[in-house]
Parts: sequence; C-alpha cells; structure tokens
Amino acid sequence: MLKLFEFFRSSASYRVRIGLNLKGLDYTSCPVNFRKDEQMSEPFTSLNPAKLVPVLETGDGWSLAQSAAILEYLDEVYPEKPLLPRDDPKDRAFVRQCALAVACDIHPLNNLRVLKYLVGPLGLSDETKNEWVRHWICEGFEALEAIISAHNGQQARFCFGDAPTLADCCLIPQIYNARRFEVDMAQFPILERIDKNCGALEAFAKAHPDAVA
Amino acid sequence: MLKLFEFFRSSASYRVRIGLNLKGLDYTSCPVNFRKDEQMSEPFTSLNPAKLVPVLETGDGWSLAQSAAILEYLDEVYPEKPLLPRDDPKDRAFVRQCALAVACDIHPLNNLRVLKYLVGPLGLSDETKNEWVRHWICEGFEALEAIISAHNGQQARFCFGDAPTLADCCLIPQIYNARRFEVDMAQFPILERIDKNCGALEAFAKAHPDAVA
Repeated sequence: MLKLFEFFRSSASYRVRIGLNLKGLDYTSCPVNFRKDEQMSEPFTSLNPAKLVPVLETGDGWSLAQSAAILEYLDEVYPEKPLLPRDDPKDRAFVRQCALAVACDIHPLNNLRVLKYLVGPLGLSDETKNEWVRHWICEGFEALEAIISAHNGQQARFCFGDAPTLADCCLIPQIYNARRFEVDMAQFPILERIDKNCGALEAFAKAHPDAVA
Repeated sequence: MLKLFEFFRSSASYRVRIGLNLKGLDYTSCPVNFRKDEQMSEPFTSLNPAKLVPVLETGDGWSLAQSAAILEYLDEVYPEKPLLPRDDPKDRAFVRQCALAVACDIHPLNNLRVLKYLVGPLGLSDETKNEWVRHWICEGFEALEAIISAHNGQQARFCFGDAPTLADCCLIPQIYNARRFEVDMAQFPILERIDKNCGALEAFAKAHPDAVA
C-alpha cells in the first residue's frame, strides 16, 4: 500500500493527493503536523532530511520526496490515466513547463519555512510578508495566463487539452494558496476557469485541504 | 539548429548548457543581457512571458522554457547519452528528486529577481541579502548531502551512479553560485567531490560561465 507523508495545507502535498486521486490509486495518509514542527525532528528527518513534505513510501522500504518527482514516478509505474500526454514530447514538455512555472517560480517563495524566515530573522511585518506572497503569485500567474492562452487559446479548459495533467495538479493548490492570501483571481480569467473545471472533478474535490483536514 | 536564449551567469541556463554538452548537441547561444534588463521587454517577453531564461528554440517555430522541462525534453528527443537512468523508475525518480532539491528548494530563493526584491522594495542591506542566500543554500546542501550519501554512500562520485545525470546538471551551477556567495563548500564533502568529478569533464568545463562569457 502506498503511504503519503503530508500536511493537509501543504500545497506540494495537495498536488500529490490530486495525482493519486486522478489515477484512482489507494493510499494511506500519514499526517506530519507542521503546527507542532514534526517535520523538523526524528523520525521524519530520517525519512526526508530536507524536512519537507510530501514523501511517498511504496511499502518495500523505498521512499521518495519532491512532489513533481513523485507525480512523474506514479505516472511511470501506473501508466493508466496519464498525468502527462503520451504521444508528443512537445506536449509533455509544455505540461512540464506549466507545472514547473508553479513549482519553481511561485511556490518556493511562499513556502511556510520562507514566510517564517521573513517575519523571524528578517523581522518583517505580517503585511510585508503577505505583500511578498501576493507579488510572486501575481507575477507567476500573469506569465502562466499568457503561456496557456498562447498555447491553448483564451477558452482553455485545463492547462493542456481537455483533461487534467501534472500542470493542473500543481496549479490548483497554488490557486488555493492565492485565495488564502487574498489575491483577486478575477485578474486571471483563464486560470480561474481551469480552477472551476478542476474543482468540479471528484479527484480534485477529494484532495482539497478542507476535505482531508 | 537548436537555439538557447540564455544569460551566461544564470544558473538555470548553465544547467541546460551542461545537458546539451553531455549529449553532444550543437546549439546557437542567443545571449539575453540581464544587466540591461533585456528579459523584461520585447522581443524576449513574447518568447517567454515569465521573463526568465533559459528558453530553447527548436528551429520549427516551437520554443520551451523551464530548464528542467528543457532537459527532460532533450533527453526524450535525443536519447543517446541519457540524462536519466533508463532502466528503473526508482532510479529516475531519485535523480529527479535530487535535481528538484536544487531547482525547487534552493535556486528559486536566490534568483536575481528575488535578490533585487530583497534590496529594493524590502530595503534590506546587501549583507542581509547575502546571509539569506547562504542560509537557503546551506539548508538545501545539508539535505542533499544526506540524501546522496544515504543512497550512494559516502564515496559517491556523482549524484547518482558513475556518470553525470540531470541531478548533476542542476547541482554544479548551484555550487558555482554558492562559491560566489562565499559558502564554505568544505562543509559538504560529498557535494565538493561531485563538483570536482564533474569539473574534470569537458561537458561541464565548456558550460561554465567563465568559459562562455
């Protein structure tokens, strides 16, 4: 049985939950309580010295961290209901580009450990911290909106094509985060539509932090 | 002919140069001058609305951003001299985990645009900015050192196995960055050895910022 070490609100955990649900894979959730800093000490740090969730354990003593690596792994080992387009390497590359636009350009800047550093060692106010979060989300979403519309047109239903992919697994948790920080999503009509389309699917609804908390 | 839009010192560009060299692929370098903010205006912003390098153009009107997506694409389309282990999905996953530990957990926090925001809008000093850079590099490198030694042992020659992979393409530019910010690499003996082993290979030496500036 697959085990997912996760925190309900971690957006990288949320990505993997969506992927597992899209593939219809059963898994056991192993909550790591970030409110109690459980990620900072044993036994978790032996599982992932990076002190970050999610971590997937495959039941044969093997484990893997990094949400995008986990989703690629699941897609290779359980090829049914693919998270990446199967036929054209350019399509796969486009989906990865969108996924990484979230996973590399937006999310790392508003990760919990980074926000703690801003208000802790750097002594910044909560308002400056929130402004920081919104700044990087808006910059990243503007780019993504342009990239998706150039590729799929203004009427795009998902990041790519007519079904969710790895890119939507990354985007939807980032939109959830954006709303928590009061980003006005009306600025990003394409992303807003994709969010609505994904939200209507059980795989996404079941993975939502409110559904698993 | 492949075209790489890049800035010599950008560590994401440096990753792709290494990958192209490891595969023995010819390409034309198209410098984007970050000192003159060329990434912030046309024609570059049409090529990549995210205003970031690198971008790969394949000569048939198609282009792709995000260094990790570019390296995966090159590895799929030019399978000779693989950047990812071919046989075992778990090995591929491990290599991706290491690559993303750099590309998601370290580099996004010391990207040029982020450093500019720290000293610009946030009004922090250069010294505080440099401390920020070193903090995230050291935290990331500590984790990576533990992950690689748990997987490959203390005597690891590369991030995985006996030849460079996608993971080394990401790690070596990050070590170059670390040295620029005066991180003492002696703290990370495994990463230091991997850096030495890679540096001895022509593919890495030819991709170094000093070699292409």
